[in-house]
Amino acid sequence: MLDYKQLEALATVVEEGGFDKAAGRLHITQSAVSQRIRALEDTVGQALLIRSTPVRPTPAGQRLLTHFRKVYHLESDLLADLLPSSDSVPMIALGINEDSLATWFLPALHPFLQANNVLLDLYTDDQEQTHDLLRAGKVAGCVSTRPDPIQGCSCFRLGRMEYQCLATPEFARRWFPHGVTAEGIRQAPAVTFNRKDMLHCRFAQAWNVMPGEFPTHYVPSTEKFVELISASLAYGMVPHPQGLPLTTRGELLPLAPQSHISITLYWHQWSLGTTLIRDLAGALKQGCRDMLLQ
Amino acid sequence: MLDYKQLEALATVVEEGGFDKAAGRLHITQSAVSQRIRALEDTVGQALLIRSTPVRPTPAGQRLLTHFRKVYHLESDLLADLLPSSDSVPMIALGINEDSLATWFLPALHPFLQANNVLLDLYTDDQEQTHDLLRAGKVAGCVSTRPDPIQGCSCFRLGRMEYQCLATPEFARRWFPHGVTAEGIRQAPAVTFNRKDMLHCRFAQAWNVMPGEFPTHYVPSTEKFVELISASLAYGMVPHPQGLPLTTRGELLPLAPQSHISITLYWHQWSLGTTLIRDLAGALKQGCRDMLLQ
Repeated sequence: MLDYKQLEALATVVEEGGFDKAAGRLHITQSAVSQRIRALEDTVGQALLIRSTPVRPTPAGQRLLTHFRKVYHLESDLLADLLPSSDSVPMIALGINEDSLATWFLPALHPFLQANNVLLDLYTDDQEQTHDLLRAGKVAGCVSTRPDPIQGCSCFRLGRMEYQCLATPEFARRWFPHGVTAEGIRQAPAVTFNRKDMLHCRFAQAWNVMPGEFPTHYVPSTEKFVELISASLAYGMVPHPQGLPLTTRGELLPLAPQSHISITLYWHQWSLGTTLIRDLAGALKQGCRDMLLQ
Repeated sequence: MLDYKQLEALATVVEEGGFDKAAGRLHITQSAVSQRIRALEDTVGQALLIRSTPVRPTPAGQRLLTHFRKVYHLESDLLADLLPSSDSVPMIALGINEDSLATWFLPALHPFLQANNVLLDLYTDDQEQTHDLLRAGKVAGCVSTRPDPIQGCSCFRLGRMEYQCLATPEFARRWFPHGVTAEGIRQAPAVTFNRKDMLHCRFAQAWNVMPGEFPTHYVPSTEKFVELISASLAYGMVPHPQGLPLTTRGELLPLAPQSHISITLYWHQWSLGTTLIRDLAGALKQGCRDMLLQ
């Protein structure tokens, strides 16, 4: 049987990014952390960490981490059942795309959070990358565009998130006086979340404008993204729940109402999930009904 | 003299994270991208890229990138002067801490953005890490807590951002009925941005509660962070400009008004900066006056 104190040291070093911080969190010395990890490396006969800044796991280290995190979550669940008065509050690590976090995700979870004494540990990434966090064992569940379950996991459909290309009336008059055209797209400043965000590329491709052929700001904050649009400084793809109050008040308008883009979102979790994760998944399924298109 | 087409290929591969996407952006084949980078590696006699996913530069590659980006920005500036009617819009890459992006940063830049045809390329990181983006040549300027200039750069003071520990009256009654105590901090669910965010640790330390001894959610979205607090699900350190409307309306209250935390922010930029960067810095200095404490 593996030594779980050693595995815990490995996981803490990777989570905290270094030996010194891991030592602080585990309340042991840095040399004790190193000893545990060396002992574990001896046991499995392979290097487990790349001593870079921040420290990263080797492929073997990653496999041990995935295993440890699953055991850790199962154990948290067991202890929550066995020791309901235990002081330590369970923590659930989840992977979530930025636009879901900015819109429906937390409101959908409010009832669950009010009913359960649990802490959320959220990691954000692009909706096409979050399942990598799940595969790496870094999170116990994730929101992703991937429709099929990855190995050892189950998944279900949450609903659709619809994006419309929005601008202020003033911006539309200045840059798209005759409606959306390829020439307009090549000139007008767009706004994109970051380089992983492909929505504006998909929008532009409908007019045969290729990625790199349109000017765009990169603003990695969903809320500020919309503020830049509201200030007539850019136009861009806004999720329906965020755009609705602005289009209703006439502050923003859809530039090409026929060409919205729909993204279907799925919930993925380990099949060996804990009761808490199953309850959370149930709450999400319920809670997203009013907020995502079905 | 180095071949700048080769340097451009290197920079594009690193920015896009892979050879295939870089090929797409440069409108050349993937094999042409590889050839250019191999030729550059021959010239300098060292490996420049680590062929991981995503592709990362070696230390030598990083030094070449820093050089290339400086030349690129200088050249953009030159061309903007020489060819004012040029079609390509200059892009300014900036490093910025999340709380500044969520509050004062873009409003301070609105007049500059309205007056200049320029695109922002924003990268977010913790205020103690943004200068690494500048040192790496990834950005031409950054907002940081570092008070002294790094080599080849200049800096000036922007102002202070003040954080208060806020909660709803209901949350305060439940978890801190007799005011803030060490015992309360050990029990009450806090909210922290991510593991780099040390503000709540500093708050707790004033009551001799060490990092790891208080329960906390991790929610990497400044806006949702505050929403969790408003929903009575957590308490946490909120920047003054974000908290003010909520405390004025009585929805949130400062838990320990005497123990706010102040962070002084500085602007850093390359000394060899372009006219555009200098104008942007001037606009920031002017624009942050009303939004940061002086």
